[in-house]
Amino acid sequence: MNLLRKTIGRIKPLNSDIIKKAQERQDNLTKPRGAFGRLEDLSIKIAAIQNSIKPVIKDKAVLLFAGDHLTVHEENIASAPIDVTTQMMVNFVKYKGAGVNVVAQSVGARVVVTDMGVALDYPKELPIYHKAIERGAKNITKGPAMSYEDAVKCLESGIEVFLEEKKKGLDILAVGEMGIGNTTPSSAIYAFITGQDVDSVTGPGAGIIDEKIRRKREVVKKAIELNKPEITDGIDILAKLGGFEIGAMAGAMLGAASEKTPVMIDGFIATAAALIAIKVAPECEAYLIPAHHSAETGYGKVMDFLKQKPLLDLGMRLGEGTGALLGISLAEIAVNILNDMTTFQEAAVVVAAERHTI
Amino acid sequence: MNLLRKTIGRIKPLNSDIIKKAQERQDNLTKPRGAFGRLEDLSIKIAAIQNSIKPVIKDKAVLLFAGDHLTVHEENIASAPIDVTTQMMVNFVKYKGAGVNVVAQSVGARVVVTDMGVALDYPKELPIYHKAIERGAKNITKGPAMSYEDAVKCLESGIEVFLEEKKKGLDILAVGEMGIGNTTPSSAIYAFITGQDVDSVTGPGAGIIDEKIRRKREVVKKAIELNKPEITDGIDILAKLGGFEIGAMAGAMLGAASEKTPVMIDGFIATAAALIAIKVAPECEAYLIPAHHSAETGYGKVMDFLKQKPLLDLGMRLGEGTGALLGISLAEIAVNILNDMTTFQEAAVVVAAERHTI
Repeated sequence: MNLLRKTIGRIKPLNSDIIKKAQERQDNLTKPRGAFGRLEDLSIKIAAIQNSIKPVIKDKAVLLFAGDHLTVHEENIASAPIDVTTQMMVNFVKYKGAGVNVVAQSVGARVVVTDMGVALDYPKELPIYHKAIERGAKNITKGPAMSYEDAVKCLESGIEVFLEEKKKGLDILAVGEMGIGNTTPSSAIYAFITGQDVDSVTGPGAGIIDEKIRRKREVVKKAIELNKPEITDGIDILAKLGGFEIGAMAGAMLGAASEKTPVMIDGFIATAAALIAIKVAPECEAYLIPAHHSAETGYGKVMDFLKQKPLLDLGMRLGEGTGALLGISLAEIAVNILNDMTTFQEAAVVVAAERHTI
Repeated sequence: MNLLRKTIGRIKPLNSDIIKKAQERQDNLTKPRGAFGRLEDLSIKIAAIQNSIKPVIKDKAVLLFAGDHLTVHEENIASAPIDVTTQMMVNFVKYKGAGVNVVAQSVGARVVVTDMGVALDYPKELPIYHKAIERGAKNITKGPAMSYEDAVKCLESGIEVFLEEKKKGLDILAVGEMGIGNTTPSSAIYAFITGQDVDSVTGPGAGIIDEKIRRKREVVKKAIELNKPEITDGIDILAKLGGFEIGAMAGAMLGAASEKTPVMIDGFIATAAALIAIKVAPECEAYLIPAHHSAETGYGKVMDFLKQKPLLDLGMRLGEGTGALLGISLAEIAVNILNDMTTFQEAAVVVAAERHTI
């Protein structure tokens, strides 16, 4: 609890002086004011988060947290066998042929994988942070997903992984996940925290249909009714409705906010983690940037709740941090615009020199 | 006319066999089917355009065409003095501090500038293609912007620049422009070709307001009424309502289509050029990819007309090919996904090997 408390204490509001200065610089670049649209706002936000008028995006990483969920397998609403979480996690670091590997390579980000509690064994010598709590979060239709102490442990594991990676250089991060069945706890978190109707935030996930979706909605309703989380306590919500990887993602977000590092939020599940992080420490919200509009049912409602609009909407619904990585590539361009374009003042010299040459 | 005719003759429909094979590969990659959303469609389109199941995006360029427009200066509806077109064109190649320079550098594309008819002198030794027709397209409220012969020349200049650059290596291109006053002819082309009401496709451009917008709309209406272009003849529409850089952009698009090279279409003005190109050779449409939803009034209506939806919507309205360059960065990631992700067949081996190791 000590690391969590300390981390929360270090999260500060954004520096309004930097926001003002960055806005002034944007307004003086050689283009019509506002012509780069949301990229201008993005550059200003990153400047404010990094507390620097010359923000830097050089070292990039996607932090992937993996965990299983007994709920969907015991309740028979899973889109894939439980083995797939472990297999894909191994694929990320050993065979490197997954979606996230290709997108991370394209964007120049390293892939960092943490086992928060997958169901199967795997070779322990693989480059994976071993932070497993148990071999899958418990069935939330029968009780909480984990104990309150384990929820704290999840959050602190996410913080630890972030701090370890920060030491290696980390100017911006993408947060993503792998976990068969993790749209189910995410929908429960969405419905409980935002107060939205369960059906409106519970969809097909990775591809279940009809009767299974209907049962998934029953599962989410039952989980909320049975566990009765305390709405003011993000840790309690995580313990009762969440999952290990969701908690670790929230922890990584808190860690990043405590170290003035911008976080690109991936799709549906990462946003559930963001809701937890914001419950635990509301000031962290300023450090989180929704990257891609998940195609999963209910995502838009949560964006409305957060008064946010993601940068991209390409109909993606993969997870793995892929949407967040696309957001990083936009952030890098936005920061280059702020740093490298000439201002009207500089251009006045240019124009004068040019007239002379002609 | 010979080069134009020859180029049009070489534009072929996309290869449906490649589309089928690329779709099959996408469906077999280790992810839920369709999970990369529009990036999957984009990768398939680029494969089909390049006529290869292994499309390549290595050499990239933004082709910028510059030209002035006497209309807006004589009618007093310009957002900036006529000098700015030439100054910015010089800035692109000499001082390299413009928006397009920064975004092109970020995306790894070279910036290629062509003078199609700017108003001022500039040092001729600068690395600029010199294809100027005259020092600005004529006032379209008093007659055509240029002669029919000059319209053909514009198109052929665009083809020539494209072919020259293709020799240096060019796997995908962005097409953009610089030209104070060029939203006015673009609005005229939008209204005339799509049949939309002039007011609904004529907006503030780079920043004029109120009375000037009202006058701009009168100018556009007058230009269409006076010049009466022939709706079936793209060259005639270009001559009567267009501009030199708009014609060259359309020519570059035709050239690219004739050489199986995908073209990312920038915002408002590039889309007017695309409308001309499609009128001249309807088969070229399959090679054009709208990149960014321009914030300028009426852009959305033209997308509806073309039954297209651009990839990005970041509220940008700069031009200079910047939106198209962002599209190229997405195209590169899309192609990497198609080429570099492992298929389920490959993963089956992976999974078997893994089970053995565990």
